[in-house]
Amino acid sequence: MKSSTITVDESNAFVTRFDLPPAGSGPLNGLCFAVKDVIDVAGCKTGCGNPTWRDSHPTATAHAVCVEQLLRAGARCVGKTICDELAFSLLGQNYFYGTPLNPKAADRVPGGSSSGSASAVACGLVDFALGTDTGGSTRVPASNCGTWGFRPSHGFISLGGVNPLAPSFDTVGILAQSIDVLVLAARVLLAAGSASVNKPEAIHVIQDAFALADAEVQEALSEPLCRLRGLCGERVTKTSLGDLADDGSNFANWADTFCVIQWAEINSCLGAWIADAKPKFGPDIAGSFELTSQLDRRCVADAWQQREEYFRRLHEVLESNDLLCIPTTPALAPRKGNPPVRTSRSGGYYPRTLALTSLAGIARLPQVSLPIVDEGGIPAGLSLLARHGQDDFLLEVAKTIENNSAAEQVLAASANTF
Amino acid sequence: MKSSTITVDESNAFVTRFDLPPAGSGPLNGLCFAVKDVIDVAGCKTGCGNPTWRDSHPTATAHAVCVEQLLRAGARCVGKTICDELAFSLLGQNYFYGTPLNPKAADRVPGGSSSGSASAVACGLVDFALGTDTGGSTRVPASNCGTWGFRPSHGFISLGGVNPLAPSFDTVGILAQSIDVLVLAARVLLAAGSASVNKPEAIHVIQDAFALADAEVQEALSEPLCRLRGLCGERVTKTSLGDLADDGSNFANWADTFCVIQWAEINSCLGAWIADAKPKFGPDIAGSFELTSQLDRRCVADAWQQREEYFRRLHEVLESNDLLCIPTTPALAPRKGNPPVRTSRSGGYYPRTLALTSLAGIARLPQVSLPIVDEGGIPAGLSLLARHGQDDFLLEVAKTIENNSAAEQVLAASANTF
Repeated sequence: MKSSTITVDESNAFVTRFDLPPAGSGPLNGLCFAVKDVIDVAGCKTGCGNPTWRDSHPTATAHAVCVEQLLRAGARCVGKTICDELAFSLLGQNYFYGTPLNPKAADRVPGGSSSGSASAVACGLVDFALGTDTGGSTRVPASNCGTWGFRPSHGFISLGGVNPLAPSFDTVGILAQSIDVLVLAARVLLAAGSASVNKPEAIHVIQDAFALADAEVQEALSEPLCRLRGLCGERVTKTSLGDLADDGSNFANWADTFCVIQWAEINSCLGAWIADAKPKFGPDIAGSFELTSQLDRRCVADAWQQREEYFRRLHEVLESNDLLCIPTTPALAPRKGNPPVRTSRSGGYYPRTLALTSLAGIARLPQVSLPIVDEGGIPAGLSLLARHGQDDFLLEVAKTIENNSAAEQVLAASANTF
Repeated sequence: MKSSTITVDESNAFVTRFDLPPAGSGPLNGLCFAVKDVIDVAGCKTGCGNPTWRDSHPTATAHAVCVEQLLRAGARCVGKTICDELAFSLLGQNYFYGTPLNPKAADRVPGGSSSGSASAVACGLVDFALGTDTGGSTRVPASNCGTWGFRPSHGFISLGGVNPLAPSFDTVGILAQSIDVLVLAARVLLAAGSASVNKPEAIHVIQDAFALADAEVQEALSEPLCRLRGLCGERVTKTSLGDLADDGSNFANWADTFCVIQWAEINSCLGAWIADAKPKFGPDIAGSFELTSQLDRRCVADAWQQREEYFRRLHEVLESNDLLCIPTTPALAPRKGNPPVRTSRSGGYYPRTLALTSLAGIARLPQVSLPIVDEGGIPAGLSLLARHGQDDFLLEVAKTIENNSAAEQVLAASANTF
């Protein structure tokens, strides 16, 4: 555990702590990390944030592949982190384990479902942490807690030893305090080298994504966007999702498609267990799972068709060194106590957030969320996305932007760094 | 169930039979299919070929997403098929449920693990069947039983409701009696349209893959290879895996890398359950699972690194309308009774078969196995593979080749059809 001004107890980020030394030496030497409790660590129960799950499943006999990779590369694992029940929430308030601290905004939720991983990183207790991200579960808490967050291209980080939620969208994500650490850890998990190109050809700023965001988020992101224009000049262009994909679709369409498939797969993965084990859920979560079981599954085929059309369209349009830019979330982290409900209609927190997060999910894109703060110091996230499979490129560009921004915030506006 | 000269009882292909009518109308109208018993059908136990698994898991509450898609497109589901225990064998001899009939070679194994699905198709009891394919479990039984077999690009057919084995390689595969039915079913599951291009730019016949095969298999495949040359002319070229990838690697290297990751992920997915439930396994299968638990997991990180290097190399080299050509399996189906063991060394059945099947697994490639027969009428398979994501193209080309071969076997040699 790193020394921090915030104690482990104050953070409430951990389910359990231990000290698992490195199993090799490499690029992660000297770094420590925590693991979301849906990912196996040998000798521990993988509790998935729900006591009934924990008590009805055996102790893991092996580390997840991703944990092996990090240990082998020199990192030390210091514990497992609290998450939302069965990873199915974007809020980070666990009825049984409590709410991990959002140290940048203590009266607000950390975001979920990788709540404890985001909290542990933001509290300075670890260098980085593993989360998972199906519908935003790494990106949203990264945005809320002011950390870096990374969702890889689907299928490029091993899910061996990670509890499935919705296989078509499940990924292992990473949260980190710095882009340098994020890139180091991501390269190990992706088995990536340095990208040969780190100069974006075009950065498409998707206007209707920004239009979904609250005024305070738009305001917070305007300065970083200006900086991006300063760094990249005319390669930064404004567009809309429908214009980009040239199919007239909008974020609500994408989110609808995402939700049908996600709910169907969640019900496929967990429905039988829920019906059989009759687990005790927190009050909000029970309703969420109820929704997945009420889905008319005959819709799934049409949704899958639509998903692949969206995927193909964007895959054809995007060049290998293009980027997309959107807000990570449409709102600052909700305040604790009266959380937004999943069933609220289009203007609500969930529909707007899923609208933004479904872009990477549907199109299998990698996404990095950069930590930004608003005028009052409350975190927000600005996201860059790249073409499916272009994870190395995306990470390199994010690193270049951050390092140039940090070093030359003033000069950059005229220097056109790339 | 289709009418066939072979009865359902004679086939021993099914765990259970039922009649699940279509849930819509579409391209699969009038076709019936069976489902490997690792894929959920609502109201059935998903037994995974092992009684302890069946008895310790609840009844499925929903169809797997892939089953929904087929029913919605007009197909009728007529039952669930026998498979090897937990899908971890390439032979198709189940200690508890018996060996499904290989109607083309009754003294030989059907191949596994999608043994019952291949048998049901080959016996003419269904138009097509769903299998899964992690390390060859659709392609090998397709080859052994003389049916068409398709493994999709990893990540492009939903795994929601399919029991995980090794998530980095798991796919849903399809077996069919005709290429036309195979393409219809695959298009539904992939949500693909017709490919815009169906003319291959280059067909790389990988010589060291053919060199792995027994003389009788090489002989059986020589005539179809000639036909391919007749159809495609100079675009058919000879190469080796090492030359193609330009890294000097060979099939044994690829298989070693594949096995480390596969075993690690199998142990991650099933190890805890096996340690806890202490299932009764057939004598051969127990040893296979024992192997996965004895793996030194510190090797996994290096294997993952190697895998991604192989993947990237081939992904860079292959154009979107290139094809690779290899034998599906290196040997005719083994005779029943004295099955080959997994631990045998490099010349054995398992190492040679995994050498061939690991090409698609490591490089995330789609693969179609075409049914061929040797002089004695024993089936063998010739495989075509395409770049990751080029499933539509691969299927269209396979269809064109088959239809042209059938219609113009004689003329084609000079006509250069494409």
